[in-house]
Amino acid sequence: MRRQKKFYAWGYADEDLSADEIKPWEAEIAQRYGISSFDVTPAPKSDEIALRATRLTVPSGLQSIVRTDHLTRLEHSYGKAGFDAIRMLMRSVPNPPDAVAFPENEQDIVRVLDWCDQAGAMAIPYGGGSSVVKGIEPPASAEKVVTISLRHMDKVLEVDSVSHAARIQGGIYGPAIEDQLRQTPFTMRHYMQAYRCSTLGGWIATRSGGHYATLYTHIDDFVESLRVVTPSGALETRRLPGSGAGPSPDRMFLGSEGILGIITEAWVRLRKKPTFRASASVRFKNFFAGADAVRAITQAGLYPANCRLLEAREALPGIPWSSEEAVLVLAFESADHPLEAWMKRALEICGDHGGAADPTDPDDENAHRSGAAGAWRNRFIRAPHYSEHAAARGILSSTFETAMTWERVPEFHRKITAITRDTIKRVTGRDGTVTCRFTHVYPDGPCLYFTFGGILDKRRQLEQFMEILTTCTAATVEHGGTTTHHHAVGRFHRPFYDKQRPELFARALRAAKRELDPKGMMNPGVLIDP
Amino acid sequence: MRRQKKFYAWGYADEDLSADEIKPWEAEIAQRYGISSFDVTPAPKSDEIALRATRLTVPSGLQSIVRTDHLTRLEHSYGKAGFDAIRMLMRSVPNPPDAVAFPENEQDIVRVLDWCDQAGAMAIPYGGGSSVVKGIEPPASAEKVVTISLRHMDKVLEVDSVSHAARIQGGIYGPAIEDQLRQTPFTMRHYMQAYRCSTLGGWIATRSGGHYATLYTHIDDFVESLRVVTPSGALETRRLPGSGAGPSPDRMFLGSEGILGIITEAWVRLRKKPTFRASASVRFKNFFAGADAVRAITQAGLYPANCRLLEAREALPGIPWSSEEAVLVLAFESADHPLEAWMKRALEICGDHGGAADPTDPDDENAHRSGAAGAWRNRFIRAPHYSEHAAARGILSSTFETAMTWERVPEFHRKITAITRDTIKRVTGRDGTVTCRFTHVYPDGPCLYFTFGGILDKRRQLEQFMEILTTCTAATVEHGGTTTHHHAVGRFHRPFYDKQRPELFARALRAAKRELDPKGMMNPGVLIDP
Repeated sequence: MRRQKKFYAWGYADEDLSADEIKPWEAEIAQRYGISSFDVTPAPKSDEIALRATRLTVPSGLQSIVRTDHLTRLEHSYGKAGFDAIRMLMRSVPNPPDAVAFPENEQDIVRVLDWCDQAGAMAIPYGGGSSVVKGIEPPASAEKVVTISLRHMDKVLEVDSVSHAARIQGGIYGPAIEDQLRQTPFTMRHYMQAYRCSTLGGWIATRSGGHYATLYTHIDDFVESLRVVTPSGALETRRLPGSGAGPSPDRMFLGSEGILGIITEAWVRLRKKPTFRASASVRFKNFFAGADAVRAITQAGLYPANCRLLEAREALPGIPWSSEEAVLVLAFESADHPLEAWMKRALEICGDHGGAADPTDPDDENAHRSGAAGAWRNRFIRAPHYSEHAAARGILSSTFETAMTWERVPEFHRKITAITRDTIKRVTGRDGTVTCRFTHVYPDGPCLYFTFGGILDKRRQLEQFMEILTTCTAATVEHGGTTTHHHAVGRFHRPFYDKQRPELFARALRAAKRELDPKGMMNPGVLIDP
Repeated sequence: MRRQKKFYAWGYADEDLSADEIKPWEAEIAQRYGISSFDVTPAPKSDEIALRATRLTVPSGLQSIVRTDHLTRLEHSYGKAGFDAIRMLMRSVPNPPDAVAFPENEQDIVRVLDWCDQAGAMAIPYGGGSSVVKGIEPPASAEKVVTISLRHMDKVLEVDSVSHAARIQGGIYGPAIEDQLRQTPFTMRHYMQAYRCSTLGGWIATRSGGHYATLYTHIDDFVESLRVVTPSGALETRRLPGSGAGPSPDRMFLGSEGILGIITEAWVRLRKKPTFRASASVRFKNFFAGADAVRAITQAGLYPANCRLLEAREALPGIPWSSEEAVLVLAFESADHPLEAWMKRALEICGDHGGAADPTDPDDENAHRSGAAGAWRNRFIRAPHYSEHAAARGILSSTFETAMTWERVPEFHRKITAITRDTIKRVTGRDGTVTCRFTHVYPDGPCLYFTFGGILDKRRQLEQFMEILTTCTAATVEHGGTTTHHHAVGRFHRPFYDKQRPELFARALRAAKRELDPKGMMNPGVLIDP
C-alpha cells in the first residue's frame, strides 16, 4: 500500500520529529530570540479545512484515474514552503485543485489533457509536491484546475551499463531511483533536501540542484534526452552524449516548470557508486576566509563532490550565536581511484587561507556521517520537518538562494545580510538572525543560500512572513543576483524573475509556449503570462 | 594594416603550404590511391570570377561601413569546406552577398538591420567565415543579401581577475583573445582547428567544440552571459555563475546560428594559464581497445584536457596505411597542482586495456609539442591549408563528425565506416579511405570524427564530392547520431537536422524566431524555414 503523505506539511503522515529533537530546538530558539514560551497551534486535521466544491465533473472514462475526494484535493493544494505550512495551520485553502489525475502512462496523460481542453480547465503537472515557490499551487484566477500527479509513472525502465545511463520515468521519487538501481553498480546521486519527496520530472522541470557541489550541480548536467507530452503532442529528443545541432531542445524544457508540457521520461547519466572517499571539515575564522579558500579550490580544477561552506553557528550544535567561525564540509568521492592527491591539495589551499583541517580517518567508511560533516548532514536531512513546527509556534524560519560571481560576493553578501536583518526588525519589531552558506560553487562564483529567523506576531504571521521573504528575494535580483539558483521560479518568484530575464526572451518563450500549448492551459501564471 | 585573408581558401593571402609540405603529401596520396600524377587547377585570381552586380544601393549614411567592391563580396561568399574550395577553383560564385557591412558598434548593427528591413534584404551575420556547413553562404532564393561582418568588434573589454572571466566582443578572432589577455595570468584556451580565423561570436552561434576533450568541450560551458542585437531590439542576459530561473536564455542563443540575431558580446569564463602539464602518447593494438580505455578514463572522473584517440595511420607520419594501430594523445594540465596522480591512474587504465604508454619526460616543458602528440598537433593546425590543394588536384579529402553513446559505438562505427567506404567506391569507381578519431569524450559517449579520402573525377568533382559527403552525413543521423557535434548545421546539414530534431521543437523555435525577427530576415534557410 502506498504510504500516505502528510497533507499539511513535509514528509509522511506516520512520521514526525521526536520530542528529543523538538525540545532542544525549542530551547535553542527561545534562547536565541529571548522568548520564554511558545503558543503552539495544533496541526490541522483534514476535516478542519473546508474546501470549495469541485467545479468539474469527471467523465466516466477517466474516473479510474481521477480523484476529487477531499483529502486528495487538499494534499495537492500547496507546496512545502513556510508560507504553505502557515496557511495549512490557518486552515486556509481557498484554491484547491478541482480534481487530481493519476495517469499510469502517456496515453492517460493525453486523455486527461484532452479532458482539460474540453472542460476549459487548467492543468498543473505535479511531481512530489515539494515546491517552495508556489509552483504547483492553483492560481485564484483559474476557473477550473486539474492537477496531474505523475506518481504512478515511477519506474527505472532501462539501465545502460556501458554508457552509465538509465531511462527513467518522470514521476519517480528520489529514493525509488536508488532502490531500483540497487542491483546495479550505479547511482544517480542527485540528492537535495527534498530528495525523499520529489521526482525526476520535477527536478528537470525546476532545474534542481543536487548533491554535487561542483560540476554536476544542476539536473541539467544529467539529462541525455527527454520525452514530453504537450497539449500539441508528444516530443522526444535524441539520446546523445553531446551535440552542437542548433539550440538544445532539452534546454528548452529544463526549467520550463510545467508550462510547456509534462516530462514523462528521461535518459539520465549515472555513475558508479563511490568506493573511495576523502572527507574533511575545515574551520575558518570567518565566512570570507572560507570563501577565499573555496574560490581557490574551484578555480584549481579539483572538483570536490562536496564543498559546502557554512557558518558554524547555523550548521553545528553547540556553537554560540556570536561566533563568526565558518566550517567547510569538503569531500571527494570516486569509484575509480584513491583521493589523497586531491584532498591533500585542497587542504593545502585551505591552509593558505587560514583553514584548520579536521581530517577524518581515511579508513573510516562513515567519515562523511561523523564529525562536523555528519552533524551538518543530519541537520540537512531533517531540516524540512522543522518547518511545520516553526509555523505552529510563530517562528520565522526560512531560506532564499541566489548566485553571484565572486568579485561581487563580499559586497552582495553584506547588502543582502543587512537588508534581511533590517527587514526582520522592521516587520517584526525584534532582532532576527541571518546566516549564509555556499551550497554549490563554480570557478566564477557560488550559490549563496541565506537562512533567516526571528519571531513573528502570530496574528499577522502570514503577512509578516510574506513581507520579509518577498523583500529579501527582491533584493537578490535588485543587487545583481539570480532570483533562484535551484528552487525554481513558480508563482512566488514571478515579480523578481520578470525583472531578471530579458523581456525579449520572455516574448520568445511566450511564443514557443503558444505553439506547444495553444490554449495556455499548462501551469498558468508560472514563468510567464500568456 | 589589416592582413588580407585568402578569398578562395583557408588562411591569409600571404601564406601557403611550403613545397616541403606539399611534396611528401602528394607522394603519400599518390601512393595511397595508386595515382601517378595530379592535374593541378591553378588557384583563382579574383578577377577570374565574375559576380552578379549588386542589387542594393548603399544609403549615404552607411557608406563608411558598407562595402560592395568585388573582392569584399567575393571573400564573403563562401565558407571553408571542401565544397567551397572546389567551387572557388571552378570560378563559380553565383550568389555573392550584395553588400558587406562592417559595423563598429551595436548602433551600427541596428542601422544596418534597419536598412536591410527597409530594402527588403536578408542579413547574414559573419564572424571569421570559417563555416564548413554553408552557414554564411547567401541562399540562391534570397533577393538581396547583406552580410554583416563583426570584424571591427574585436576587443576584450573587461577582465575580472577575481572570478576569472572576461567581457569580450563577438567579432574577435581566437588569437586576438589570447593576445589581449597576454598581460593577465589568464587564457580562454578554446582552441579548435578554425581557431586562427574564427570568432567568439561565431563559436557561440555555432556551439563550437574546442581544445578541452572533457568538461569544457563546447563553448556553451564558457558562457556566463550574452548581448544580442535582434531585429526586435537588443537583449542582454544577466551575468551569473549559475541559475535555475526558467529555461536558460543563453541556451536559446547558443547554437542559434544567426537566425535570431547577432551576438555582439559575451562574458566568458577564463582560467589561469597552465603551468603544470603531463602528456603521454599511448599506443593500442586497434581503435576499439583504445576506445575502451578512453571510456574508462572518462567514466573515472579524471577529466584530462586532451584525450584524443586517433588511428595512427591518419595522424602520424610513417605509419603504413594497413596498420590498425591507434594512438591516444593524453594530457592533463593545471595552473594549480602537479598531475602525477592523474596521469598515473589514466596510464594504469590504458594498461588495463593493452595500451603501451610512451610517457614524455615530465620535465620537458614542450612535451605536448614533441613525439606523437606533437606530430598530431602539427597536422591538426596545418590541416585546413590542405583543403585547397586537395580540391585543386581532384583529391577527395573531407570530414564529418557526430556523437553517439558508448554502447552503440562499435556497431555505429562499423556501419558508418562501411557506408563511407562503399559510397566512395560507388561514386568514384575507386577505393577510398576512411578513418575515425574521438575529438571530445564524455562519460556516456564520444564525438566520432570521420576523415575520408579518395580520388574524384575532376569533371564531376563537385557533384561527386557532394554525393559522398551528403550520403555519409545522412547516415550518421539515420543510425542514431547527431548531424553535428561541433560544426553547426548551416544550410548543408538542414535535411539531416530536420530529421534529428523533434518537429514540435522546430515549431517552438520558429515561433521564437518570429518574435525576435518578425520579417524572417536573419540568416534565412539556416536551422528552420519561416
